[in-house]
Amino acid sequence: MELAQTTPSRARAAAASASPARRNRRALRPVIARGLKGVVVTDTRLSHVDGERGELIVAGFPLEAFAPHATYEAALFLLWHDRIPTPAECANLAAALAAQRTLPEPTLAVLAAAAARALPTMDALRMAVSTLTLTDADPSASTRAAHLERALGLVARFPTIVATYGRLRQVLHPLAPREDLGHVANYLYMLTGTPPEPATTRALETYFNTVIDHGMNASTFTARVIVSTRSDMVSALVGAIGALKGPLHGGAPGPALDMVFEIQRRAAASGRSLALEAEAYVRETLGAGGRIMGFGHRVYKVRDPRADVLGGAATQLFHVAGNRDLYETVREVEAVVVRILAEIKPGRRLDTNVEFYTALLLHGVGLPTELFAPTFAVARAGGWTAHVLEQIEQDQLIRPESLYIGTCNRTWPSGH
Amino acid sequence: MELAQTTPSRARAAAASASPARRNRRALRPVIARGLKGVVVTDTRLSHVDGERGELIVAGFPLEAFAPHATYEAALFLLWHDRIPTPAECANLAAALAAQRTLPEPTLAVLAAAAARALPTMDALRMAVSTLTLTDADPSASTRAAHLERALGLVARFPTIVATYGRLRQVLHPLAPREDLGHVANYLYMLTGTPPEPATTRALETYFNTVIDHGMNASTFTARVIVSTRSDMVSALVGAIGALKGPLHGGAPGPALDMVFEIQRRAAASGRSLALEAEAYVRETLGAGGRIMGFGHRVYKVRDPRADVLGGAATQLFHVAGNRDLYETVREVEAVVVRILAEIKPGRRLDTNVEFYTALLLHGVGLPTELFAPTFAVARAGGWTAHVLEQIEQDQLIRPESLYIGTCNRTWPSGH
Repeated sequence: MELAQTTPSRARAAAASASPARRNRRALRPVIARGLKGVVVTDTRLSHVDGERGELIVAGFPLEAFAPHATYEAALFLLWHDRIPTPAECANLAAALAAQRTLPEPTLAVLAAAAARALPTMDALRMAVSTLTLTDADPSASTRAAHLERALGLVARFPTIVATYGRLRQVLHPLAPREDLGHVANYLYMLTGTPPEPATTRALETYFNTVIDHGMNASTFTARVIVSTRSDMVSALVGAIGALKGPLHGGAPGPALDMVFEIQRRAAASGRSLALEAEAYVRETLGAGGRIMGFGHRVYKVRDPRADVLGGAATQLFHVAGNRDLYETVREVEAVVVRILAEIKPGRRLDTNVEFYTALLLHGVGLPTELFAPTFAVARAGGWTAHVLEQIEQDQLIRPESLYIGTCNRTWPSGH
Repeated sequence: MELAQTTPSRARAAAASASPARRNRRALRPVIARGLKGVVVTDTRLSHVDGERGELIVAGFPLEAFAPHATYEAALFLLWHDRIPTPAECANLAAALAAQRTLPEPTLAVLAAAAARALPTMDALRMAVSTLTLTDADPSASTRAAHLERALGLVARFPTIVATYGRLRQVLHPLAPREDLGHVANYLYMLTGTPPEPATTRALETYFNTVIDHGMNASTFTARVIVSTRSDMVSALVGAIGALKGPLHGGAPGPALDMVFEIQRRAAASGRSLALEAEAYVRETLGAGGRIMGFGHRVYKVRDPRADVLGGAATQLFHVAGNRDLYETVREVEAVVVRILAEIKPGRRLDTNVEFYTALLLHGVGLPTELFAPTFAVARAGGWTAHVLEQIEQDQLIRPESLYIGTCNRTWPSGH
């Protein structure tokens, strides 16, 4: 049976005791929490975004305390079990994930069909994950162990799906996963065909840990709403992928480096210095009412801990394994942009943000731009499964109300 | 960029002006709107559930004013365009739906794979709908006309998917849709292989109209959250199917007739009358702490307009086309159950509810119990698409907050 969405009874009681004019207005218009902004829907022990202090806590750890050090497997264990794994537990989890990477034949067929239509990777990922019920040996089991096993099987297969689709889109033969590689290294291997350098794996692993969870964003919320009806984990993750697809979700790294490449192109064409072209580009874009992508924080008022961690990881990566020239170019352009933004928009904090460093890091590990958002989904799958597990324990249906503003008592014509 | 889920600033301001003890408590625990109960998330012109008055308004019409009379195509037009269609508009919409019923080959392959694993129909439906991006000629088009075209293509294919899967599960060859039949008649044809009697179509069409929309239930809310990120309609509907799968969603008709069949079986075995067995069954079940399914309203306090409409439709159906014996049995058992419930639990309204009449009607049109919930989804697809269209126009990200209750400042051990 579905619940009513009439005026909440509290609002009715308040209206009854108010003056006639107020009563009338309130009875017609209860407060609408548009977009649920500021509405706290649940408690969680998974992560805490403190925008005013510039902090992100993941299961008890300040982001910078674990993201650059932990394996993704250890971060997963932490979110699923709320404690640091022992080395043996870490190895067991890594082995269990490695053993579940292959995709069933129908999933591969769906990916091939999507590739034949050149669909975006996020659509292919949603289609493929939706078929993973096929891998569930006992879909009706509802113990915590069964839910954890499902979480493991899903997280294990996200990288296989994206890497397989990435290769299909390039008309390359998909590669079989390698059980001897960790979660992140195997993802890079399946994309490129070459086991990655340790520094490259470390950089991408730091990215995975950095974005593994981030409070009650729209995709995580979607997963929780779905499973709050006691639906299944595949349904929840498929819904989350659908929400993440949307450009308003944010979180998914956009092409923040495009500006750098454009400025580099202009400098090569004009013969002028990068700094001059960067300054001209920023003044020109802002003068025309445009936005500079990759700068400014909407949430974090003092600093974005993710930008700090990813900036550091990018520096390390390019120092060891990357293209030093590109790195120098990016940092030079970045410095000019920050200076000009501060001059034109004084008093606003328009520092380099997480999207900029994400783009730099993912570019540095060799990912094409079209895989940035799907790679975000691969990493976030860990957080989604942890929220689903938490929601299953809470077992509370999430179901708001709506206010009807249409007409009433229309008459249906006969003969229709 | 993802938004923070720190304590809302209003709560902080309130805390600052309170006494130290209250401040401390409030700062630690802002109000959590658990399950979003009583929170009005949006306005809508699509439907209005008034539990206290016992009314359901769908786009301006009291349910009983249009559900028994309208074609499903007319109801769809009403939800999508907020006005009654002309006969020509109705015919055009029917023809447009009929022209889009076929499934792409990869969708059929997914259904075959699900059938080979004997997955529940709702899982198969979610997998198949997720592949329907393959049918979108221009996924990036974002005009209202393009969104309407997508809604049409999706609603048109839901019955094909369920009917195809229903036949695959019975190891029958799937049937091609018939363009000369209406939306509901074609669904019955594709399930059975025989064009249905007009009375059968009318009964199922009344059911489709009755459940086409029902306020802000969990699946509709899921669809709106997903598309609120500016994601796509397929993603939204796939999420909605996932939410509908959950047993707490309600709405999906359960096997409320099972009690009747059990009582019938006992009467045949014992030789006692139906009435005596029914009374014994109810007393025995309630005495053992059990629940009687199909009676009592959680939302509607005075009457459930859906029960009235479906009860009337079932009476008409069995009068013209159905099994009169079954009908008489059901009504006899129903009368006894209502009488005994009123005697044992006086003061509680435990009338026959919508699930009971739904089960009677769907059984009467020949649907097996395992297709009750998927048939609900087929009908509700109309409401989901209408809510997605409305949400696209509102263009407001839905994104609540969460409260962190985990620990802080854990230390990551070296070597992990």
